[in-house]
This record gives sequence, structure tokens and C-alpha cells, in this order.
Amino acid sequence: MIKVGIVGGTGYTGVELLRILAVHPDVEVSCITSRSEAGLAVADMYPNLRGHYDLAFSVPDVETLSSCDLVFFATPHGVAMRMMPELMAAGARVVDLSADFRLKDLKVWADWYGMPHESPEWAEKAVYGLPEVAREEIRAARLVANPGCYPTAVQLGFLPLLEQGLVDSSRLIADAKSGASGAGRQGKVALLHGEVGESFKAYGASGHRHLPEIRQGLEQAFRSNVGVTFVPHLIPMIRGIEATLYAELRDIADFDRLQNLFEERFRDEPFVDVMPFGSHPETRSVRGANNCRMALHRQENSKIVIVSSVIDNLVKGAAGQAVQNMNIMFGFAETRGLEAPALLP
Amino acid sequence: MIKVGIVGGTGYTGVELLRILAVHPDVEVSCITSRSEAGLAVADMYPNLRGHYDLAFSVPDVETLSSCDLVFFATPHGVAMRMMPELMAAGARVVDLSADFRLKDLKVWADWYGMPHESPEWAEKAVYGLPEVAREEIRAARLVANPGCYPTAVQLGFLPLLEQGLVDSSRLIADAKSGASGAGRQGKVALLHGEVGESFKAYGASGHRHLPEIRQGLEQAFRSNVGVTFVPHLIPMIRGIEATLYAELRDIADFDRLQNLFEERFRDEPFVDVMPFGSHPETRSVRGANNCRMALHRQENSKIVIVSSVIDNLVKGAAGQAVQNMNIMFGFAETRGLEAPALLP
Amino acid sequence: MIKVGIVGGTGYTGVELLRILAVHPDVEVSCITSRSEAGLAVADMYPNLRGHYDLAFSVPDVETLSSCDLVFFATPHGVAMRMMPELMAAGARVVDLSADFRLKDLKVWADWYGMPHESPEWAEKAVYGLPEVAREEIRAARLVANPGCYPTAVQLGFLPLLEQGLVDSSRLIADAKSGASGAGRQGKVALLHGEVGESFKAYGASGHRHLPEIRQGLEQAFRSNVGVTFVPHLIPMIRGIEATLYAELRDIADFDRLQNLFEERFRDEPFVDVMPFGSHPETRSVRGANNCRMALHRQENSKIVIVSSVIDNLVKGAAGQAVQNMNIMFGFAETRGLEAPALLP
Amino acid sequence: MIKVGIVGGTGYTGVELLRILAVHPDVEVSCITSRSEAGLAVADMYPNLRGHYDLAFSVPDVETLSSCDLVFFATPHGVAMRMMPELMAAGARVVDLSADFRLKDLKVWADWYGMPHESPEWAEKAVYGLPEVAREEIRAARLVANPGCYPTAVQLGFLPLLEQGLVDSSRLIADAKSGASGAGRQGKVALLHGEVGESFKAYGASGHRHLPEIRQGLEQAFRSNVGVTFVPHLIPMIRGIEATLYAELRDIADFDRLQNLFEERFRDEPFVDVMPFGSHPETRSVRGANNCRMALHRQENSKIVIVSSVIDNLVKGAAGQAVQNMNIMFGFAETRGLEAPALLP
Repeated sequence: MIKVGIVGGTGYTGVELLRILAVHPDVEVSCITSRSEAGLAVADMYPNLRGHYDLAFSVPDVETLSSCDLVFFATPHGVAMRMMPELMAAGARVVDLSADFRLKDLKVWADWYGMPHESPEWAEKAVYGLPEVAREEIRAARLVANPGCYPTAVQLGFLPLLEQGLVDSSRLIADAKSGASGAGRQGKVALLHGEVGESFKAYGASGHRHLPEIRQGLEQAFRSNVGVTFVPHLIPMIRGIEATLYAELRDIADFDRLQNLFEERFRDEPFVDVMPFGSHPETRSVRGANNCRMALHRQENSKIVIVSSVIDNLVKGAAGQAVQNMNIMFGFAETRGLEAPALLP
Repeated sequence: MIKVGIVGGTGYTGVELLRILAVHPDVEVSCITSRSEAGLAVADMYPNLRGHYDLAFSVPDVETLSSCDLVFFATPHGVAMRMMPELMAAGARVVDLSADFRLKDLKVWADWYGMPHESPEWAEKAVYGLPEVAREEIRAARLVANPGCYPTAVQLGFLPLLEQGLVDSSRLIADAKSGASGAGRQGKVALLHGEVGESFKAYGASGHRHLPEIRQGLEQAFRSNVGVTFVPHLIPMIRGIEATLYAELRDIADFDRLQNLFEERFRDEPFVDVMPFGSHPETRSVRGANNCRMALHRQENSKIVIVSSVIDNLVKGAAGQAVQNMNIMFGFAETRGLEAPALLP
Repeated sequence: MIKVGIVGGTGYTGVELLRILAVHPDVEVSCITSRSEAGLAVADMYPNLRGHYDLAFSVPDVETLSSCDLVFFATPHGVAMRMMPELMAAGARVVDLSADFRLKDLKVWADWYGMPHESPEWAEKAVYGLPEVAREEIRAARLVANPGCYPTAVQLGFLPLLEQGLVDSSRLIADAKSGASGAGRQGKVALLHGEVGESFKAYGASGHRHLPEIRQGLEQAFRSNVGVTFVPHLIPMIRGIEATLYAELRDIADFDRLQNLFEERFRDEPFVDVMPFGSHPETRSVRGANNCRMALHRQENSKIVIVSSVIDNLVKGAAGQAVQNMNIMFGFAETRGLEAPALLP
Repeated sequence: MIKVGIVGGTGYTGVELLRILAVHPDVEVSCITSRSEAGLAVADMYPNLRGHYDLAFSVPDVETLSSCDLVFFATPHGVAMRMMPELMAAGARVVDLSADFRLKDLKVWADWYGMPHESPEWAEKAVYGLPEVAREEIRAARLVANPGCYPTAVQLGFLPLLEQGLVDSSRLIADAKSGASGAGRQGKVALLHGEVGESFKAYGASGHRHLPEIRQGLEQAFRSNVGVTFVPHLIPMIRGIEATLYAELRDIADFDRLQNLFEERFRDEPFVDVMPFGSHPETRSVRGANNCRMALHRQENSKIVIVSSVIDNLVKGAAGQAVQNMNIMFGFAETRGLEAPALLP
């Protein structure tokens, strides 16, 4: 049984961590912080947790947090990087669900997040926590940068193609769609039900913060530069990401072995499900679950490979992947606490 | 570890049973039947179950079913009553999620379901499986009639008032609303997304099959006749029932003790949550979970008691309550397999 | 051709007024005000209006407004009452969509709206603009208080029963449900898609501001006191109100003539549609249209009359009714600009 | 005033035609046919039309139809082609909303629609009714093949690029998303609210019937072969299509003139709105309206042009475009009956 703390627990990733950890047999949540809601019982903010937690939000403090075996950050960007040096000095281990430690090029980070990075030392040491790529590094890590939601869905779908160098890396296209919970739990007019419901649109089509994160991951897999276009869209639903990926095969003859390649690549991955060729993964098939499901498609005799990849943005795209990383870090079975099937319908 | 069979597993209550039982530590689902889908893997129909079940649908047969420790019926009405005599003779224990054994007055049953009842013997012996009322009878039962979704939400909310005889029993009103999954998984135009989405309406307002079931339960609690008006409505969402109940206090002075009365009545119930006076239970607070949450209201100094009661129609209103009944019947902890918090958001 | 101004045009009732007036052949919108958005083109805020309006938001000023033939207020409560004396002195005619002039008892108004009323003179002179009740007074009015959304749906459904004194006026129950646009267009967490979507709940069940407005209207129809319980609920959709009304007949023999009574009462009303007995009006059947559709129900041989009444909260419940009032005030055909059928599906 | 007939009026395009034509000042709908619903009043099937039509569905017959000035077909594919020779011989003019006359290569048509084409003569003579491309041919046409929904959104967005030959025509990608009404009004399990709601998926990713139609239109604009990949997706909403289009500029310097090129191309088009560079068109901005709105995007200094294009699949993607074509054919103002702004929110 380990003790964990959660910094910034009032958002959707915070409540999702609490939901998952409520039934994790090896974990006790010993503190959850929120400056604005200090004193409020978490079950008063999130009625689904009534009967599961006695905990109240508290003001974050380094001493309490560093007494935990693990600290999750579920904060807006900029918070974790400021607390990290002190927390690391106090010996903590951290899974950061924010964007603070995801990018290795801190100039790029500063450009996209609009502020200088304040913890270059830990940005360098942080392990980018995509278990399907970096399981061993995660095991030993003190600081894991939990991947973004879109980057998780997009990278997993492109990985086998890029690792094997099968596609024209200069022409990758990722057309991705997310439910509204991905935008967080802030009182903004643009996120109202009256604005989001019964409508669909692209957003960030001229550039989104997840683009450099996606590119970094793809370039690492390809071991060279890649050119990727990434357009996110907002779906009138709460949870779920679907990414439709387009890549051009360098040798059209490779089409015959793609399905097998994908199945092999993820054969031992507990949370990646390569569906039969020509399937259409539905976001509801992963709702509330830590799975990524994907399937391959080809139109007529085209050289374009199409991959459709789905995750729950709050689970494999955030809190679930964070728990998966925690399981790896502490030597628990990787699926511990993440076994329940998705909620369908 | 017990073996269970599921008859009629292609509908929403069937997949919900499979979802819940997938993580129940004491249960193995050993067969699931469907005449129309025999041979199809359940994971091919329900992709959320990929990796959880190897099972395929099979044609129902009494021998296989009676070799199970428990059989769930998740069939349209009329099916269970026809199979029951033979199955009971073979020694089976059954939780029937259909309406076949819920009503004790078989003339009323025949009127509302449009066919004569074919198993009067077992209709008499069946235990109406609302654990908050009949826990001990359920423990010993061979055949449990699992309550309907609306009747569960409505009865639980009215029970404390009727058991204590505090209200005018001739003027009960239950205005109830349900998500579309309550109508089942049949290819009907009226249930299309294009018909149900972004719209709201009453249905069955001149009389709905759950009315006699509600009345039977309320009369048992009141130990006399009651007059109840029940109007269901269709919400443009998938899961969840909210029932707003109106009753007139016989003695207005009783208002002061109502909150306490409700809390006492359900103090030991693991799945009924009486929220603070004046709260507004949300259906999402029970999505995917076996809880019923309720709260009391009063307007100005009125003698009308208002109770708002929410459940997930597929869980406490169907498959979850069936598993709760199974837990009681087999001496498992009542909350076994039903511990996870609701999925919110 | 008349010139109209709109004060406070950034909310959902503001854009709805603009949408309706865009095709009204006798109206030109000559100014629309918003302090916070002054200078912004309305089509930049509301892309559905691109190509329909050249207008930009401006700072409200009495001189410009009083040069209009009619001014609509689509402001939060408290704004109209402060501007009204000066505007009336300048000779304006006004339809106020806010709550400022709906209640005649200003003590009640102050209690529910949390501030003293600042324009008692005009509160007294204002005509409550439910055309089905006060058409002639509206025709001559200088200031029309446009009814609230819930009060419109509830009053229209109860009116025939109360005007004829057929029901027990002490036991009226109105269980009403609304889409999220009724809560307005403000950046509040509780109104996010992530909070409202796929969930249903009662709110204001212990008392809602529309209760005294409903009671005032019903008492006027009944010419005596009434006891009414009103519980609103939030539907996970954008537009539409359904109210299910319950009343107890004083003489059960009257049931036979109710359908006829309702049809007669509204025979000449262009926007009230009494559907066949036992119908279930859908909110989508009035989406974007100024209609109220209603139907009667009875369960078994009960003495309870059930009325289901639907409107679009933004049209007959706000902007459409305001235009209907304008048409009456200026002698246009009452249906002018309001002829298009509802958007279904 | 012309008389029009509608063949196959029970689907969503049928009711949408009726909705639009109800307020068209130059049109009277004199007959609407449905074999299965003959005798039923249209207002009994579509309550939004109560008070607008006295019409009942009738059995289709050529004599009645050919007495109309124009006949709309809103039938499944295969119906119009069988009736066309006789109807044309009787002198009718037709706008066919089905797919029967959209493709010029009848071998391709037969492959995708699974039956031989039975009216090659009229397939050759039919005019593909995209007014932005073929206005003059439409004016003179006796038979107009109304474009598909996806093909309308996709072609309009690509047209300026292909007409000018600015992009690599071998690498076009159209990632398109549609609300559920696009799948029609048939009682299929896959279209239930319980299946479609709160989920998102690709479908037809290995090949969809609209692919050859899109390619035919793009090749006509490019005057040579094109290679296009088209993946449709299902959005959990009712109306609206968004297509995100990706094309690679042949000369990166052309980026600077693209916005101007698009604006010029559509300057005189009443229903195509080129929004400012970098905008994000929302489907709700065209809900119920005949507009196509589009905007251009570029990421960093990429040579990929991104176009986001939105329409209402039932309006500009079906019934609205059909009425636009009718207006052109009969010399009415092209916007007649199509002037109302979209319904937002």
C-alpha cells in the first residue's frame, strides 16, 4: 500500500484520478490539494465520490506532499515546474499530468506555453511517460511527464509505421477529434453546453500546443525529422478522442504486412488493442477504460495508410495512463486498478 | 467461484451484466445465449468487452443453463415465464431481469403485457428483488424478479413516507425521466438518434407498464391501497433516471423529522444515499454505479414533500441490482463487484 | 417598417431576437447595445448572422434608444428597471424580456430578486405580455413585460382548467424541464458541456424565481388564491421546455369535456396547438418556432388531469413571444415573421 | 406559383423539403408520396408541420407527378432511375436528391450501388446540380442530380485550389464528419441513440459511396485525374457536416494569395461564405440554413493548405440545395425561401 498525493484536484483529471484510485487495492490517497477549494470535502464537489472518500481539499505544501510515496500533478501548466525543484530535493516521486515536462526543447516549450521554463534541470531528467515506448525508463524515473491526450492517440497509431521507416515522414496528417472534457473544467463561455452541444468544429487548426509534443515523439520513433500536420476538432460529447491518421507508404508492397506489423508491435501491450483490418473503433468502446483501440484501412489500391485510433482522453489520455505509470514505477501489475471494461452504452 | 449463465445477452442489460461480472471476483460467466446471434463472439458485438471474454453466444438450452449456479434472464417479457417451469424443475436459481415475475396479480399482468401468464406457480413463489425491502426473502429465493428501472427509483423515494403512513396515499405523483437505453436495443425509428437527440417528451402518460408494479410496491409498504400517478419522459441521453416525487403530508408538523427519517431508513443500505436536505441529485453521479441517491425538498411552507431520486437505469435499475441480488443469494458481500464509483464526468 | 433597438444583445435571447427579426419584413434593427462588446460586429459574435447584419454592438444611450419605435430589453434583471423611467419619459415603447416588470407585488419581486424595485411606477403600468390572456392590453401598452419561459409553458397548460374553476386550485403541480440555453450565456462551471451533458437533475426544487410569476398568472385566471408546486429540471439539450402539469378535477364527470374545452379556449390562438387527447408533444416539434403544443392525458379512471405542454424556451418562451407582442403593439399580423415551421429533426 | 410533388417524403430529406417549402412564396406542394404511409397526414408524422400542411401521403403515380411543374425525389437509390424514363416522357422536370444520376460512369455507379443502372439515357442527360459549378446548365435542365452531402462540403472547399491547379492533385485528403441524420430515418440498431450518442467513430474508411462522386467533381474541376482519400465519421449530433481538407501546394509562394483566391471564387455566390483566414467554422452556424462556410489554415510554414468547410447535411447537403436548384430552374431569385439565418444556439 502506497500513499499518494494529488496537487490540483478540482479539474476533470483530478476527479478521474480519484475515481480510478478509489478501487486501486495498493493505493491510499492521503492528500489532495486546491488553493481555491481548501476545506471543501471532495465528495461535496464530486457527488460520484460520496461514500468513497473522506478527504477534503487542502492547501498544497511541500512537506506533506513529499511524505507521500508518489505525487500526481493535475494542475494547469506552469505550476508543476515551479514546485518541482523543491519537491525533488525533498525526495518525492512525481507523475505530472500537466504539460510542463513533456518537451525536451525548452525554447519550443516557452514559445508554445508563453512563459520561460523554470525547471530546466528536471525537464531534462523527466521521462516522457508513454509506457509503450519507455517502460524501462519509467520504472526507474523519479519524474514522469504524462503524455497529452491527443499525443497519446496519435503517437500510438503512427508508431509502428515510423519505427519501421515505412512511410514518407514528411507528409503525416493527424486529424483528431475530442470530447469537451479535454478542454478542462473552467467557466468559459466557449465551453458552455449551449455553445458546444449539437455542433462540431475544428479548433487550433493553425497550430495547437500538442503539435510539438506529437512531433517530438514521432521524431524519436523515426530517429529523424518528420513533417506532421495536426488538426484537432471539438465533438459535442464529454469523453473520447478519435484520431484518423494518414501516411503514405514508401513501398506499396508493404501494405500486405501492415496488419501483422501492428499486431506484433503491440502484442504484449496490455492497453493497446489492434482490431481486425477494416474495423472502426468507437470512442465508447474505451469510455472510462485505459485502452487504446486502433484499426487499419486502405481505400482501393491507394498507397495511403489510414489508421483510426481511439482513447478516452481522461483515462489513457490522462489519469489512467498516470496510474499505469505509477504501477510501473512501483512494481505493481501494470493493469492494477485498470481492469474494468469500458462503459458501453 | 460460481458459474452463471445469461439468457438473452444481446440487449443493453445483457452487455451491462457482462461489464459488471467481468470484474466480479467470485463469478465466472460460463454461457450466454441468443438465438439470433448464436456463434458470434460477445466481444464482436460489444467491443468494450474485447480482452475480457472469450465467450460466444449460444442457443439457449435447459441442460446447460441448469448446470450453472445462477441464471440471469435479460430477455423480452414472455420468454422467462415459458422457460421457468422446466428450469426450476432442473434445480436452477434465477434472477429474472424481465417483467415476467414482478406482479403478483396475474390478471393485471395479463392486461398490461397483452398475454396470459404461463407460469402462475412461479409467479407466486418469485421474490420481488428490491433488497431494501426484501433482503431476507431474496437470500433464500430460488427465483428473484428483479425490479423495473422506474419502479426502483420511485419506490425507494416513497418508501419511508409510506411505511410510516405520513402522507395522503391517494395523491402520490411520480414524474420520472429516463435516458434512451431504457427503451432497449431494437431497431425502431422512434429510438433513432435523429428522433431522440435534442428533444424531450412525455410518453406513456396515459398508462405505462411500470405503473402497476409501482403501485404494488407502494401498497405493500403502506399496507393499504394507494393512488399514484406516474408519467415517464424520454431524456436525450443514454443512461440515467430521475424521479421527482410529490406527496402531501397528513400532518405538516412532520416536515421537521423527514430528513432524519430518510437517513435512518437507509442508514445500513450500501446503495442508497440520502443527500443533505435541499440537494439536487444528478444522474451522472450514479452513472455506471449501483447507487440510488435522493434528496428532500420543500417549497415555502407547503405541505407537499418533494423527493428527487436518481439511479442508473441499467445498473441499480437492472443489471447492478441483479448482481446485488445474486450477491445476497450466494452469501457474498452485498457490494462485491459493485464498488467502483460512478463515471463523472 | 419600424425601427427597433435591442439592449443587451450578447445573450441567447439577444441572438434569437436578431435571428427572428432578420426576416421580419416590417422591422429594421437599428441598434443593439452591449457595454462589454461595444464595437464588435454582431456577426463576429454570432456567425449564423454573417450576411444578415452589418450592425455592431454599441454602448446603450437613451437618446438613440428613444429614437427607435420599439426597444427590446434582453438584459439581466435589474437593468431595465433602472433605465425605464428615463426611457419612458423620452416616449419609448418597450418589450422587456427580463424579469423586471413581471410581478405586480414588488415586495415579492424584491424577495426573489434580491434587490429593491427601482421603478414602481412602471411596474404598475407594465402589461404582462401573455397574448393569450392580455391581447388587448398589449395592443395599447407602452411597456410590455415579456413572460418567463417556464411561466409561459405552465400558464398556458393550466389556463383552461383554472379559468373554468374545474380543479382543486390548492394542489397544482408543475414538473417542468428545460434545455440549457434557459440558463443563459455566462461562463459558469455549472453550465459547461462537461457538467450538463449526459446528465439530468432537478434544480431550484426548494424555490425558483418563476414560482411567484406562475402563481400570479394562475391566480389571475382563477380569480382567487392557488397553491402550486413548481420544480424545474435541466435537460442535456439546448432548446426546449416541457412542463407536465397535474391537477385534480373537482367533478370527475368534467373529464369528458376537457379536450373540447381546451380546443375551444385556444381555437383562435395562432401559436397554441391543442393536440389530440393522449398525444405526447415533443420539444423538437417547436424548436425555433413560436408555438406551444399541448396534450391532455388521464390514467385509468383517475381524477387527475395531466397536461403536457412544450415550447422553445428561446422563442415562445422569450424572443418569439416578444416579437409576437411587438406585432400586436404595432398592428402587424400577429404571426408576421414567425411563420416558419420548427426545425425537425 | 408553381406546383411541386415530392416522391418518398417520409425520410429526413422529405420533411426538410416540406419545412423549407412551407414558407417559399412561389411554391405549392401539391402531392407527396409514400407507398408505406399512404393516407397518413404529413402533419401526423411530422408534428412540426401541424398547421402548415393539409396534405396526406399518397401512392406515387406518374400522371399526378407529371402534372406538377417540378418533382423532387427523396427516395433511396434505385427508385428514381426506374421511374425516370416514364416521367421524362410525360414531360416532367425533376430534382433527384438520391444518388441515381450523380455519376457519369455507370460502371462505377453499378459497382458502388450494387445494381446495374436502369436509365443510362437520363444518367447522361442529367445535370449535376452544384450551382457554384453548373448554374447555367441547371437553369436549362430537365433532370438535376442533386449532389450528396459530403460531396457538397468537400468539393466546395477544394474547388478553388483545383480549378487553379495549385496543388498536388495526387494527394488530396478529405476527413469529413457528419451528424446522424445523414444516415437517414430507418430503424437500424446502429443508428439508435444508445449506439450513436456520446460516441464518435470513423465509418466507411475503406471506401464510401461518396468517394467516386467527390472524385468525379474534383477531376472535372482539375480537368485531369486526382487522387483523393475520403474518410467519413459519425458525430453524436443530428445535423451538420464538417470537412477538413488537406492539400499540398505545388508552389509554396502561392500561400499568400489563397485567401484572396477563395474570396474571389465565391464573391457572387449567395450561399458560400469564405470566413477570415484562421477562422473555425462551426456546424451550428449553418444549422437549418443553406450556407456553406469555410476557412483556410496553415501550420507554421508548411506547404499543406488546410480548409475547414461546414454545411447542414439536410440543407445545403440535400433539401436546401434542391430548392436552390429549383429556384434556378424556374427563374426565381436564387435565395428565395432560403433567406432565414441558421438556428444558433
